[in-house]
Amino acid sequence: MEASSVGIVGVGMMGGSIALAALRAGYRVFLYDRIASEKLAGLRFRTASVVNDLSELVSNSRLIILATPIGALAQTGNALHDLVSPEHVVSDVASVKGPIAEVLATALRGRCEYVPAHPMAGSEKSGPEAARDDLFAGAVTFLCPELALKAASVTLVTGFWEKLGTRVVLVSVTAHDQLVAVMSHLPHLIAALLVKHAATSNRAALELCGPGFRDATRIASGAPELWADILLANADALQEQLRSFKRELEEAMTLLGEKDVKKLQALLDDAKENRDRLSA
Amino acid sequence: MEASSVGIVGVGMMGGSIALAALRAGYRVFLYDRIASEKLAGLRFRTASVVNDLSELVSNSRLIILATPIGALAQTGNALHDLVSPEHVVSDVASVKGPIAEVLATALRGRCEYVPAHPMAGSEKSGPEAARDDLFAGAVTFLCPELALKAASVTLVTGFWEKLGTRVVLVSVTAHDQLVAVMSHLPHLIAALLVKHAATSNRAALELCGPGFRDATRIASGAPELWADILLANADALQEQLRSFKRELEEAMTLLGEKDVKKLQALLDDAKENRDRLSA
Repeated sequence: MEASSVGIVGVGMMGGSIALAALRAGYRVFLYDRIASEKLAGLRFRTASVVNDLSELVSNSRLIILATPIGALAQTGNALHDLVSPEHVVSDVASVKGPIAEVLATALRGRCEYVPAHPMAGSEKSGPEAARDDLFAGAVTFLCPELALKAASVTLVTGFWEKLGTRVVLVSVTAHDQLVAVMSHLPHLIAALLVKHAATSNRAALELCGPGFRDATRIASGAPELWADILLANADALQEQLRSFKRELEEAMTLLGEKDVKKLQALLDDAKENRDRLSA
Repeated sequence: MEASSVGIVGVGMMGGSIALAALRAGYRVFLYDRIASEKLAGLRFRTASVVNDLSELVSNSRLIILATPIGALAQTGNALHDLVSPEHVVSDVASVKGPIAEVLATALRGRCEYVPAHPMAGSEKSGPEAARDDLFAGAVTFLCPELALKAASVTLVTGFWEKLGTRVVLVSVTAHDQLVAVMSHLPHLIAALLVKHAATSNRAALELCGPGFRDATRIASGAPELWADILLANADALQEQLRSFKRELEEAMTLLGEKDVKKLQALLDDAKENRDRLSA
């Protein structure tokens, strides 16, 4: 059980990218997935050790990162319960923290340390074939330290995500879920609705769209079964954002109705100024 | 006045990109802009002829493309009135056709041919420095043939946009404006509102966003003064789209409130299927 090794449970696009990035950063990597280990070995994870059961992964890695779909996390947490010891630090990468952290904290309570994490990087593609070793370069990783007993556990997970090239930001579980509702879940639902709207209004239009529509709706290509779970797991925070977004939409409709060029330009000016800051 | 030459009025990102792409396609290019001709000559347009007045441009090119901001098109149309002859074909590249086509058709009536066009390509950057000779590669160009008297005029403009690597789609002025309301103007306003919403909800969040938010809001970096004019010029069609988009948003809020995972996944499934068709 070395500090320079990491065990990853669930090897899709996300788990696979963590594996490739960790290998690149010099970690020894142990992989476990329900799918046949031969299938994983055939991909680009040759220098990782693909193991056939969780206990082998647990006995080799102090840090264990869960990267399964969020629907499978409870089961994985329960399976780990009897295998882990107090020196183990379990983390996850789920896009929602509230209900997930509660489930995993309950499953692992008294057994090992638990430090929820969420790297803000992803892809609309899925599956281990879509894994990339540079997925996390320059990204932000949120870490929720409030469930850990020892500072060393937070340090271990922080060090891991920093070695993978991300900037670690500590945040509470509640603040995290409000943040991602604004920055990820609302835009995701809106992108899906823009595609639905275009397909309904004018099916031919989809084939005639420009790069603006393409970029604005890229995230709508994300895996629906994963995203339905994510959006529902954060439904309360998302509903709150949807209500205020709807009010802002109505205000925009009013000033468009009034042909108020000054106010419309002020809205677009502010948006440009804030959007331009993202690239800086 | 050769068929293999083109005159471009207004040399920002769009006019500049048309110039560079036309030079690359073998056209002789004449450029006119209010800004000092030396300034243009200092950019990458060396093989184009930068002229100091419109009459010089008109006497050298049968095809004249107006690429000024839409607020300057009426003035340009009026300035062309006394200069053009019936063999000239004037076109434009405005993102809205209804009110623009009416203004230009009125200004040019009985003087020359007018064939409105709209290449569905752009950039959030502006100014001639942002011009790119590959901006139009693979894009769709809408052409409205209904105002031309001679088929040859439509053929001339079609040939030009095909040589620049775009696929030309003939469409009526009214159908065009409904299409772009769906595919461009609604997504633009929504992107601006997503940025506004994020900045209002949690200013720190903007610095912590991931690539999804970045892509979904890229178009919100477009030039506000141009876009305020575009959105207002197409306000009626846009309002109609906003009303139905708002209904779809309310429906999504309802099924999220009911935690209806089946319906939510069906919505995301449909969106993914339609979005994936764009890349094909």
